[in-house]
Amino acid sequence: MLKVGIMGSSGYAGEELIRILLKHPEVKITALAAKIEKTRVSKLYPWSNAMLDLDVYDMSAEDVGKKTDVVFLALPHKVSMDFAPVLLKQGKKVIDLSADFRIKDKAVYEKWYEIKHECPGYLKNAVYGLPELYRKDVKGADLIANPGCYPTSVILGCAPLLKKKMAETDCIICDSKSGVSGAGRTPSQALMFTEIAVNSFRPYKVNFHRHMPEIDQELSILAGAKIEVNFIPHLVPMERGILSTIYLKLTKKINTKEALEIYKDFYKGEYFVRVLEDGILPDTKNVVRSNFCDIGMKVFPEKSLAVVMTAIDNLVKGASGQAAQNMNIMYGFDEKSGL
Amino acid sequence: MLKVGIMGSSGYAGEELIRILLKHPEVKITALAAKIEKTRVSKLYPWSNAMLDLDVYDMSAEDVGKKTDVVFLALPHKVSMDFAPVLLKQGKKVIDLSADFRIKDKAVYEKWYEIKHECPGYLKNAVYGLPELYRKDVKGADLIANPGCYPTSVILGCAPLLKKKMAETDCIICDSKSGVSGAGRTPSQALMFTEIAVNSFRPYKVNFHRHMPEIDQELSILAGAKIEVNFIPHLVPMERGILSTIYLKLTKKINTKEALEIYKDFYKGEYFVRVLEDGILPDTKNVVRSNFCDIGMKVFPEKSLAVVMTAIDNLVKGASGQAAQNMNIMYGFDEKSGL
Amino acid sequence: MLKVGIMGSSGYAGEELIRILLKHPEVKITALAAKIEKTRVSKLYPWSNAMLDLDVYDMSAEDVGKKTDVVFLALPHKVSMDFAPVLLKQGKKVIDLSADFRIKDKAVYEKWYEIKHECPGYLKNAVYGLPELYRKDVKGADLIANPGCYPTSVILGCAPLLKKKMAETDCIICDSKSGVSGAGRTPSQALMFTEIAVNSFRPYKVNFHRHMPEIDQELSILAGAKIEVNFIPHLVPMERGILSTIYLKLTKKINTKEALEIYKDFYKGEYFVRVLEDGILPDTKNVVRSNFCDIGMKVFPEKSLAVVMTAIDNLVKGASGQAAQNMNIMYGFDEKSGL
Amino acid sequence: MLKVGIMGSSGYAGEELIRILLKHPEVKITALAAKIEKTRVSKLYPWSNAMLDLDVYDMSAEDVGKKTDVVFLALPHKVSMDFAPVLLKQGKKVIDLSADFRIKDKAVYEKWYEIKHECPGYLKNAVYGLPELYRKDVKGADLIANPGCYPTSVILGCAPLLKKKMAETDCIICDSKSGVSGAGRTPSQALMFTEIAVNSFRPYKVNFHRHMPEIDQELSILAGAKIEVNFIPHLVPMERGILSTIYLKLTKKINTKEALEIYKDFYKGEYFVRVLEDGILPDTKNVVRSNFCDIGMKVFPEKSLAVVMTAIDNLVKGASGQAAQNMNIMYGFDEKSGL
Repeated sequence: MLKVGIMGSSGYAGEELIRILLKHPEVKITALAAKIEKTRVSKLYPWSNAMLDLDVYDMSAEDVGKKTDVVFLALPHKVSMDFAPVLLKQGKKVIDLSADFRIKDKAVYEKWYEIKHECPGYLKNAVYGLPELYRKDVKGADLIANPGCYPTSVILGCAPLLKKKMAETDCIICDSKSGVSGAGRTPSQALMFTEIAVNSFRPYKVNFHRHMPEIDQELSILAGAKIEVNFIPHLVPMERGILSTIYLKLTKKINTKEALEIYKDFYKGEYFVRVLEDGILPDTKNVVRSNFCDIGMKVFPEKSLAVVMTAIDNLVKGASGQAAQNMNIMYGFDEKSGL
Repeated sequence: MLKVGIMGSSGYAGEELIRILLKHPEVKITALAAKIEKTRVSKLYPWSNAMLDLDVYDMSAEDVGKKTDVVFLALPHKVSMDFAPVLLKQGKKVIDLSADFRIKDKAVYEKWYEIKHECPGYLKNAVYGLPELYRKDVKGADLIANPGCYPTSVILGCAPLLKKKMAETDCIICDSKSGVSGAGRTPSQALMFTEIAVNSFRPYKVNFHRHMPEIDQELSILAGAKIEVNFIPHLVPMERGILSTIYLKLTKKINTKEALEIYKDFYKGEYFVRVLEDGILPDTKNVVRSNFCDIGMKVFPEKSLAVVMTAIDNLVKGASGQAAQNMNIMYGFDEKSGL
Repeated sequence: MLKVGIMGSSGYAGEELIRILLKHPEVKITALAAKIEKTRVSKLYPWSNAMLDLDVYDMSAEDVGKKTDVVFLALPHKVSMDFAPVLLKQGKKVIDLSADFRIKDKAVYEKWYEIKHECPGYLKNAVYGLPELYRKDVKGADLIANPGCYPTSVILGCAPLLKKKMAETDCIICDSKSGVSGAGRTPSQALMFTEIAVNSFRPYKVNFHRHMPEIDQELSILAGAKIEVNFIPHLVPMERGILSTIYLKLTKKINTKEALEIYKDFYKGEYFVRVLEDGILPDTKNVVRSNFCDIGMKVFPEKSLAVVMTAIDNLVKGASGQAAQNMNIMYGFDEKSGL
Repeated sequence: MLKVGIMGSSGYAGEELIRILLKHPEVKITALAAKIEKTRVSKLYPWSNAMLDLDVYDMSAEDVGKKTDVVFLALPHKVSMDFAPVLLKQGKKVIDLSADFRIKDKAVYEKWYEIKHECPGYLKNAVYGLPELYRKDVKGADLIANPGCYPTSVILGCAPLLKKKMAETDCIICDSKSGVSGAGRTPSQALMFTEIAVNSFRPYKVNFHRHMPEIDQELSILAGAKIEVNFIPHLVPMERGILSTIYLKLTKKINTKEALEIYKDFYKGEYFVRVLEDGILPDTKNVVRSNFCDIGMKVFPEKSLAVVMTAIDNLVKGASGQAAQNMNIMYGFDEKSGL
């Protein structure tokens, strides 16, 4: 049994990781750290019942490392980069759900996150953990930079057309909509039930969201050309789920069926990416609490426009599910285990 | 035009008061105090648009008094009792939405609220502002203790049967359910959207809620006998609305129709209390954003049991609407003005 | 007092009209028709209480006309074109909330709505009731074609830039999101609570929605050039509200502040259109239950891209509120009356 | 591998059964019947993905029987009693989720359900499938009458006190609250999103719900005395979950701790019943999507009152999860398999 630890167990991603790993036949959770008063995990998460005989408490990275083979960091950015090096030096594998190792260019990271990167030396070897694009690299990785939720939904939606150089690179529009859990568990007035469940739907951080440099980096790699997307996130009054509606200008006249074929071909063998039939559009409710990414398309050849719609669960394929998928690949487990 | 002020303008009750008073043809809001950075009211509440040309800021009770004839205190308990005397000494009328002047017995207040009462001298003259029971007193009052939301829903539901001595006084059960706005606007993890919109329905403070002594006091007065209710509040995953299901043991064999007649008679001429027809049950959606209290009944004579169900909007008839109704009575306005 | 009737009183738009007209000081509702069993309006809508002493029943257009000066048709398309001529011949004014008189080109109407137009002769004189664009025509109109909810949100968002010829006309993208009431009151499995309140957010009818020809027609008039928008509607798990995120390619280098100035200038004096300050974005919760349209903008000059975001209540500015606004203009009432 | 079939696959209970059985290591779904047009199960339920290679269609009971060892009937009452005999005669085991075999007294069934019972001969041998009370009988059963959702929540909450004769039997009050999925998947206006997500919380069928005779029957058996409960159901604006607040008059002075000990003792070894610690109250969110029943208590000895609060997921412990638990017992599987 692989011994796994989670740092940041009290957030939504941490909770979802516990849920997933408890269903995994080949791993055992042996350490749960969180910046909270020491408590029984079954007190913190009543749903976990007696399945897990552990305390959650404010443990050092070093102590977590001693009890585990692999550690998930479900932490805010900045905190992860303090802990990851400690664990890596202990010879542990690290799957980091923060942004700290996603951006290859230190300067870009420091500009968007407005802090100094403490261990830029690790950036080169960190693997961007989007298995559908980097499975081979994930396999041998020691440090996984698990993708952000929005980037997962956008990159999977754009990859086939960009890789095939069938879309223009200078006017990509990503109109994304996310459930509220994407904003985390820290209390704030704006996230209260009574502020959101009053017919509140709203855009925020228009072309200003920290997930943008990550999207730009990956789309540029795919296209072999510098891409700066337009990324417009919105908050949906629901717990979880992301739907991204992506507008791409086509460089070649193809129709919906042809486009779908390209996508099906690109994602052939990918269990977690489901390219929907013509006429079927994604719905977040079909992917919540699963690791699937559903992709639907409508192409308008006369307008050279492709509308790609992707749906994921922001806490699963957009965070903890993908992290577990990465672990499965790293350790040669069935990629679907626990998911 | 009557000049009115609101202290506590940044909470839900304060916001609702502004909404109501702006529709009132005979009043003018002239002061809005809140413990926030000075801001334009139209910034704080975009819905208020250009209707109100005022700043909201941290103003002293004295300064509020100088600009107004009557002041609503939409404040937490303890704060109100600091401000009310200042305003009363200035000769202003005060409508207090906190609990500070509701409990006639200082010792009971101090036990339940766990603080010393700073101005018990005002308790005697403060009028419990439930117009359907105390309209005459309200008319001449300087200080209104505006009832709590739960008490309003329970007292209106019990009054006719208790007043007529047709219900036993020793085993009243009030199973109440409230929308989340009843918990106020202060951020906390338990009140986040992502903690409630996940199929969360739950009881809390079973026979331990601070609205109990207020209910006991008023029901005892009605019955002419000491009553200690059983009060079991629950949190409903919706923004607003309270539904109380009240179980009363009857001392006399009557059926549903007879019981409804008693209620209709008791509330004859009361615009804001609607006794529903036999077969019709209240639904919070029929009263939200209104000052109505809907009352439905089912009586089971063979079991000597009456089930009384009442529905109100906790922020309107349960707080700000009732406060405005009291103001209307105090100043001889049409009781429905603004409502 | 102006005597008004509503046909289609049992739908959401009809209900909202009653709510608005009851607050209107210069009108009296004298006829309520609906395809339902005869019932008291206070039974159908408990919130309306004793305010309206009327029956709702299946009344003919002729009979409604006899009791009224002006009639609102809150009906499905096809039904309106049967009733409007009857009323107009009686000399009544008609404000039609269906699509039947919105599309000037009969052939376009017949293609999108898949039925024959029964009275194309009325199309020419019907006025498209968007007061911010056609106030003068509304004033003298006998037949108002009240705009659709989505078109209102899109047209108001595009008008200033198109009118000034500052946006390209061939690649407009309208990514719109609507609350569920837009789908009406007819029961269907897809609209059940248990199908939507399960984290369901989804696109539908991509470039295939019947509101498109209406948008195209009005934007083309504004731009003086043929426009075919891309219109991608989505369903949001909330009761009401529409937010449209509109992407326009600019033909001139301007920044956000300059763009906002253009919008403020264009909508100067328009009470119901609020152009938000730089940095403030619209939120549907700020407009629900009001007739406001909030417009926020972000312009990216280096990308020649303008992102315009508009928020309305689909049942108010997107339907019944706008209809009442049109009535106010037609009869010389204060344009804000009832709203 | 045990071959299982589901009749009524297109309802919520049927869907939940598929979800559970797909996770079960020892069963294989071999037939899915529903009154719908033939369709792929992965089309009907996109979440089921490629996990199940089956068509769903309108199959006869006989045909379902031919393909299976055990059949779940997730059907409305009346339909089940037509199908069960067919299957039983084929030698199949039947787990019926309808009410048709729950009421031992044919006359009581016929009175409450207003139809003739077609096969009363089966009533005697049908086992009421509440494993915590009837595990031994379940083991040998051919026909399981799977309990209703409300009855499960009420009976588990009352059993220990009644069995020990520590509660009075003549004034039990069950104030129950259910999520909307309890009302099934058949479209109706009252169940539309736009009718419920508008702050709607309401009681219905006060002492008139068809789950009452089932509750009475089982509580009477437990108490060894005829019991007629008061059962007051309410609809909560959430998808799933039931919370029952039960009021019992005690015949013996005990406190909360003693009462909890009695419950812990009664449910010792029962994995799916969790008696909460003193001070902890149940919340439906802790049990949704699980087969747990959480029980919390507060006892007021001076009032001889016990308040028992139970929470279950109406579709899991209240329907399909309990059905699977029964199957596990019948076939000697681990009782937690699939759950």
